[in-house]
Amino acid sequence: MFFEGSEKKAEVFIESSQLSLLHDIDEQFWYKLVESGNAKILSSSSNEYCKSFILSESSLFVWHNHFLILTCGVTQLIKSIEYFIKNIGKENIVYCSYQRKNEYYASAQPSSFGDDIALLSQYISGHALRFGEIDGHHNYFFYNENKCIAKRDKTYEFIAYQVNSDVLHKLSSSELKSNDIREFLQLHVLFPKFTLDDFVFSPYGYSVNGLYQDKYFTIHITPQANSSYISFAANIDLIKLVPNILTILQPVSFDLLSINETHFIKNSRQHVPQHYVSKSLVKETLNNGELMCFASYILPQQIYSRANKFNEIEENHAL
Amino acid sequence: MFFEGSEKKAEVFIESSQLSLLHDIDEQFWYKLVESGNAKILSSSSNEYCKSFILSESSLFVWHNHFLILTCGVTQLIKSIEYFIKNIGKENIVYCSYQRKNEYYASAQPSSFGDDIALLSQYISGHALRFGEIDGHHNYFFYNENKCIAKRDKTYEFIAYQVNSDVLHKLSSSELKSNDIREFLQLHVLFPKFTLDDFVFSPYGYSVNGLYQDKYFTIHITPQANSSYISFAANIDLIKLVPNILTILQPVSFDLLSINETHFIKNSRQHVPQHYVSKSLVKETLNNGELMCFASYILPQQIYSRANKFNEIEENHAL
Repeated sequence: MFFEGSEKKAEVFIESSQLSLLHDIDEQFWYKLVESGNAKILSSSSNEYCKSFILSESSLFVWHNHFLILTCGVTQLIKSIEYFIKNIGKENIVYCSYQRKNEYYASAQPSSFGDDIALLSQYISGHALRFGEIDGHHNYFFYNENKCIAKRDKTYEFIAYQVNSDVLHKLSSSELKSNDIREFLQLHVLFPKFTLDDFVFSPYGYSVNGLYQDKYFTIHITPQANSSYISFAANIDLIKLVPNILTILQPVSFDLLSINETHFIKNSRQHVPQHYVSKSLVKETLNNGELMCFASYILPQQIYSRANKFNEIEENHAL
Repeated sequence: MFFEGSEKKAEVFIESSQLSLLHDIDEQFWYKLVESGNAKILSSSSNEYCKSFILSESSLFVWHNHFLILTCGVTQLIKSIEYFIKNIGKENIVYCSYQRKNEYYASAQPSSFGDDIALLSQYISGHALRFGEIDGHHNYFFYNENKCIAKRDKTYEFIAYQVNSDVLHKLSSSELKSNDIREFLQLHVLFPKFTLDDFVFSPYGYSVNGLYQDKYFTIHITPQANSSYISFAANIDLIKLVPNILTILQPVSFDLLSINETHFIKNSRQHVPQHYVSKSLVKETLNNGELMCFASYILPQQIYSRANKFNEIEENHAL
């Protein structure tokens, strides 16, 4: 069974002097917002800074003045953003970004990035960029220019592709419990102090949200052998965790992306093991003054492997 | 303007004791076959072994007992193959292969590889494989098992991606004449003895077919900066030409593919410069005994480049 792990991601900041997304908005609003994009809320956890939700496809985090949502599969995240804009009012939006990774099967998606931006641009004007080459891993990124500069965290993403087959075999076991996966990923080592909320999908697949004060991390695992995809997103430094994560997952390739990490180049040079080589490196200062960096790495192959049998169900009727 | 350079490719062998594709089939047949796939014949050349055609999208070569056709853009090559099968009869087909490269914009294609195979399988049963990972350069390949082993040449493909920007600038000039491009590609050095038939597209783009006895080569150039793609196919050894081609085109990445080259690994190790690293290596002995090898290389990046501006027309309404 194929599953499109590649995510769409949106982050929206509001004018918070009048409204707190955490206190002034009831839970039903977030259920409806998520459903607008064809996903569902499965569970939630919270502290005084943030409320997080595990979704049927990825995650949602809500703070006082902003929210972050990631959805994968064939969801239409852009419809969730439209729901937010229509209900909260575009005049209350200080900042909005919308991002899409290249999908394994773009043709199975209900809309393209251009379609999404055409919809969003009915409400918000902005700029759209591509980080990475079209024939390789890349991220499309749309953002409006800040009306006023919202104080935004440094954020980080790490995506592992073609994870080691033993790891995939382990993660594809239908016997796995939440604690087995937490242990395997060494979440207590990578993310100490964080309170976890996680979900093991059937027959496999795993999502976890972690909260510590106003810090979050989220991990999503699609262990399907032909289209394995494991994503990490956080507002704590993931670059320094790269060696640990690579040791656990042993992927053939991985991507790093960050916003506002001014030491991205230095830190990635320091922490990415030398046996991985840079395939694509992109650095851009956005019109709003923010810095966005993207780097894609591969493990050079030395040994010839066999061809994959074409699986019509997996590769052409991708869900 | 975006153009999908990535090709579909088919090769069909017939039982030749009763029929010569070169002598017993009139030219109108090939015009109709090409039109069935939504392409057009633009010019032709021939010798006693082979007749070649430059198409509005790529090329067709016809020998006594087989033909080879490549089409790019949004053509439906599978419909041309269906035309052949319907008119010549599936009982006369000894061997049929159908191949598709990963497209820059799969979602702009009128059909998927799975759709194509579903159509072809109404006439011919066979096997389908994928060479290369889904999240990188790859080739889908379908073939029927030979009823009798047709004597097949060693064939070679070389694809250059992200060609040097100065090269693209030169090849995108609307002033270029055929001779300028022949000279720039050093075709007289790479392919001495070959008789050339070529076509310069407007505003740019170039195709050339070369014939020498029963040997062919064909090159197709899509110089659009965001989606540059230059393909070589031949039944003469392209691996030993790799150093020369790389010197001319200076691509960021390239793919090599061959059928029946038993020295593929040794030869590619010998001729691929060491500053390119192997991203994907696949070797498979097909059920019919043929050997197929695929290798994808990248030039590791050291310098951070800027993001690409997203161009809705190029990236979402791709033709």
